[in-house]
Amino acid sequence: MYEKVLSDLRSGIPVLLYDEEKREGETDMVVASQFVTPDVVRRMRKDAGGYICTTVREEDARLLGLPLMQEFLSGAIPEYARLFDQSDLRYDKSSPFSFTINHRNTFTGISDEDRSLTIREFSSFLSTLDSSDGRRVEFQKNFRCPGHVNLIIARDGYFSRRRGHTELSTFMAEEAGLTPSATVVEMLSDTGKSMNKEEAIAYAERNSLTFIEGKEIIAQWANGQNNGLGRLRPAASRSSALPS
Amino acid sequence: MYEKVLSDLRSGIPVLLYDEEKREGETDMVVASQFVTPDVVRRMRKDAGGYICTTVREEDARLLGLPLMQEFLSGAIPEYARLFDQSDLRYDKSSPFSFTINHRNTFTGISDEDRSLTIREFSSFLSTLDSSDGRRVEFQKNFRCPGHVNLIIARDGYFSRRRGHTELSTFMAEEAGLTPSATVVEMLSDTGKSMNKEEAIAYAERNSLTFIEGKEIIAQWANGQNNGLGRLRPAASRSSALPS
Repeated sequence: MYEKVLSDLRSGIPVLLYDEEKREGETDMVVASQFVTPDVVRRMRKDAGGYICTTVREEDARLLGLPLMQEFLSGAIPEYARLFDQSDLRYDKSSPFSFTINHRNTFTGISDEDRSLTIREFSSFLSTLDSSDGRRVEFQKNFRCPGHVNLIIARDGYFSRRRGHTELSTFMAEEAGLTPSATVVEMLSDTGKSMNKEEAIAYAERNSLTFIEGKEIIAQWANGQNNGLGRLRPAASRSSALPS
Repeated sequence: MYEKVLSDLRSGIPVLLYDEEKREGETDMVVASQFVTPDVVRRMRKDAGGYICTTVREEDARLLGLPLMQEFLSGAIPEYARLFDQSDLRYDKSSPFSFTINHRNTFTGISDEDRSLTIREFSSFLSTLDSSDGRRVEFQKNFRCPGHVNLIIARDGYFSRRRGHTELSTFMAEEAGLTPSATVVEMLSDTGKSMNKEEAIAYAERNSLTFIEGKEIIAQWANGQNNGLGRLRPAASRSSALPS
């Protein structure tokens, strides 16, 4: 399943990614950001229906100056800290939201053409990212905030720190040898709830898409770490300006 | 058409609101926030497909301490001011986005049940709003940020300052005698673009919904102002912490 997911991602085919029972218990439709076309966005909004978000690795977010909103707002508006307190989240310690953006060549930013343009251009920007100040200036020239694409930050060290769809999907894009950004959206059900695992599997079968669980991805990652392949650094070896 | 829209809003029926050719040229599906059920959210994501946003009047946003993101971020991160520069927007001077929120009784926040709960609770909160500090504390106890419902701010003075769907829909909710908050979402087309006016009218006819243009609403408002009814204050009579 793991290799099939990598190959689907390389072909721009959506994969269905379930996190775990004890977490959200949600399935996200995932496409490598570099392959997000207007048709992909249309499918995401019609078949999935959740929040369309685009991931960025924490190390890339740091280069771009993109903060975690929760952390940033808590610091910026201390008298309002209670609003940004997420300690009562039942499935995790924190949410991954950063800024929302539109590419400056969009019109209102919300059409399938506009959102897919923003996502592809952001992915393309990431593929040429370096630590020079010039790239940060370039980023601001090309994108505006607020916008209609939600950026979400995948923590450094991946599953040693968080096991959300953000980390799972970004890790898979990176493993596939693609620009390390995925675009994800929660699969919602007509019941009023998010799709449960059985509904998501049934959707995958009806549409010949691959369904994978987070635990299989995390097992592969842990395996790679133990083998000393060392491409993915454990969190302890990195300092971070972002909270765990 | 105007009276029909007011009566539809009072009955929790969606109305279709087109702004104008020279602006976005987009149609939003609009429901009074107090009547947003899981079924309404499902219809909004399946039939409309854009960004589901909930409006709040500028005067209420001020009581709650909710800023315009663009203004707030520009001030908070001056070295990044270019990112928040929206002067190249082709249809308006600024975007209305404020914080995103979830009610604290939601789980992940994205399901139809969760989003509609957040929206109804926010509307209910607005209906009891006053200028006491206690209400602000209460707000933070009941909602968290970031979340999955986008709050957007309708400018004081309404159409003297901005003529967006935010102002149009909030004005209509207020005119209908309801809690002054509307929930809105852009109608997208299978063409990859936003629905044009003809597509939106055809959708309205197929679904027996009322379609109205911003100019009709603005004419009614201007009429009310000229009659000296005085319920809606011209912008010049108010000071504002928010930019025009």
